[in-house]
Amino acid sequence: MSAGWTVQSNLPVSFTIKTVKNILDPNNNSLLELGDSSRRLLFVDSEVFSHFGKKIHLYFSHNNIEAKIVPIDISEEKKDIETLMFILNTIENFGLLRRNEPIICMGGGVLLDIVGFASNLFRRSVPYIKVPTTLLAIVDASIGVKTSINHFGRRNRLGTYYAPQGVYLDKAFLETVPPQEIHQAMGEIIKIAVIKNTKLLSLLETHAPQVIKEKFLVDGPADKIISHAIHDMIQELQPDLLEKNLERVVDFGHSFSPLVEMNSLKDSTVPSLSHGQAVTLDIIFSSCLSYNRGLLSKESLNRIIELCQMCNLSVTHPYFKNVLMLWESLLDTTKHRNGNQNLPIPNRLGSCVFINDVTLPEMHDVVGVFEKFTE
Amino acid sequence: MSAGWTVQSNLPVSFTIKTVKNILDPNNNSLLELGDSSRRLLFVDSEVFSHFGKKIHLYFSHNNIEAKIVPIDISEEKKDIETLMFILNTIENFGLLRRNEPIICMGGGVLLDIVGFASNLFRRSVPYIKVPTTLLAIVDASIGVKTSINHFGRRNRLGTYYAPQGVYLDKAFLETVPPQEIHQAMGEIIKIAVIKNTKLLSLLETHAPQVIKEKFLVDGPADKIISHAIHDMIQELQPDLLEKNLERVVDFGHSFSPLVEMNSLKDSTVPSLSHGQAVTLDIIFSSCLSYNRGLLSKESLNRIIELCQMCNLSVTHPYFKNVLMLWESLLDTTKHRNGNQNLPIPNRLGSCVFINDVTLPEMHDVVGVFEKFTE
Repeated sequence: MSAGWTVQSNLPVSFTIKTVKNILDPNNNSLLELGDSSRRLLFVDSEVFSHFGKKIHLYFSHNNIEAKIVPIDISEEKKDIETLMFILNTIENFGLLRRNEPIICMGGGVLLDIVGFASNLFRRSVPYIKVPTTLLAIVDASIGVKTSINHFGRRNRLGTYYAPQGVYLDKAFLETVPPQEIHQAMGEIIKIAVIKNTKLLSLLETHAPQVIKEKFLVDGPADKIISHAIHDMIQELQPDLLEKNLERVVDFGHSFSPLVEMNSLKDSTVPSLSHGQAVTLDIIFSSCLSYNRGLLSKESLNRIIELCQMCNLSVTHPYFKNVLMLWESLLDTTKHRNGNQNLPIPNRLGSCVFINDVTLPEMHDVVGVFEKFTE
Repeated sequence: MSAGWTVQSNLPVSFTIKTVKNILDPNNNSLLELGDSSRRLLFVDSEVFSHFGKKIHLYFSHNNIEAKIVPIDISEEKKDIETLMFILNTIENFGLLRRNEPIICMGGGVLLDIVGFASNLFRRSVPYIKVPTTLLAIVDASIGVKTSINHFGRRNRLGTYYAPQGVYLDKAFLETVPPQEIHQAMGEIIKIAVIKNTKLLSLLETHAPQVIKEKFLVDGPADKIISHAIHDMIQELQPDLLEKNLERVVDFGHSFSPLVEMNSLKDSTVPSLSHGQAVTLDIIFSSCLSYNRGLLSKESLNRIIELCQMCNLSVTHPYFKNVLMLWESLLDTTKHRNGNQNLPIPNRLGSCVFINDVTLPEMHDVVGVFEKFTE
């Protein structure tokens, strides 16, 4: 036998991210425009459910949809295989049809990630719809196609690429999030600004304190900031949804932070780091590294740090003095980037370069710079 | 805020299925032509390992590759989340790089499915290579991009679509498989013949007993049969890798069998059904249904049953007299086909139609026909 065959195909991916006002108004059709069934299965963050549960129930009953609404008590610590199996079990018991009963997920990035993961795994994929309810999820988890859980003590170690059927953004959910959620979301927005968008940077420097105070609920600069952030995220992610290219601008802030973030959750002697907070510290650390190499000016470094402070983000943490932990995190990140550091650092505001030659001694120096600039 | 964005992309999939002679000859480069590292991680069916373990070790040491070779004791019953987590744990401990250390998987369809699943989930996908070692895997699991485990007592309930980086077929592995493995593989080959390829049907009727006796090891008709089966499978799967179209010709034999197959493994009072054996019984049952509707001639139905017998396949089983179990299986299959039965039945040899109106009373009649023709 001597033969060969090639299997070739192009798999189209397409979904729309829509901004919607009053998504829970029973007369607003948005949540039901996808799918074709008189039933729906919803997973709703339990905190969101405590504020909007009644409205959600009314929405579906008014529209004659038999909805199973499942509140999920979720957090980074519970983004694990147990929660994943609970969600899968719920889908199985619901007897979900394979194609026209899209699962609706309302919550922050962690819930969107894990429900997306479950939706991908059940019967090799069933459609799902993302309704982000936090600012971080609006500007970050909404855009991409990554799904995941934490495992082996590592952030997002298991997961897939799986696009939602649709994404609906309604700022009204932000009314009930705690102020810290808005602050930490600023970490991902600052990331985009520093590394690729000076217009966004100026917008933030002018309006951040006000829009944060207003929780982005007032139209105007808040919407401009969100639009810039989403536009730039799409621009970066869309050409490479499967991360074939491992030099990713959006990895800025995500090189040293993953392990640090995970470890902080298990260590009662240090402040727990939210994702956005961990990213912020990494942004500053990576910028210090750039400054230390003579790439980024002192003024630019100070502008970055001041913007973080202006957004009520903490700019120090004991782990960012722990060179060995930062190094271990970078080593794992390097494996994730297939053996290369591919470390994005800003060479000036609005621009970045990738470096591959960071050493442990250099890290020691950078910790010194970090301490000096953030003390 | 009122805006919308569309994320759009085309994800190319491409892999080659190569036939290789003497794949374990240290001078044969096939197994190493993909990837770029001095390490490899292999998962090998423990039965295959008992026959070829020494040769596999020699192959890698001769090529100066540091290989971690992990025998896996696998079966349909062990195609579960425990085995999946063991494989993932092994990958984690190996410290696999994300892109250039393709996992090599040598085994039957069950092992290919579960290692493919793990490869998809680890860091949102690492490359893997399929080396099928059974006839069933050569003509079936090699071709597609489905990965899975059994869960909730259902066959392949959790899984993904994930293409391998490459597939290598070496018939030499068939030398050590038990004769029943060859027989059950004939079920999937007969499926293709009945539903879409009368040339293959004739080839089987003329040569099946001989090539089965020779375990497909002798070149000639055996290769023609394999080539026809693979060619037709690719033809059916390639245009629709993600199963957007739920009218699938290759689902012939897979409508009543999934639950029956799973149940038979847990019931000591009936013969356990291998996948190919369960598919065979479903082929006959679906053909009886077609005959009962006056679509398929008596002669054609008898030819199908005789071909199955010629291939040492059993044509009866207590569960195929259990109308309620068959009906329950069809109901779940219907969910999998998004609420439609989409039942492929042969309207003549080499051709099929899809039907959507099977009822429980009709199933009673068909069980009667089945008993009459197979007694």
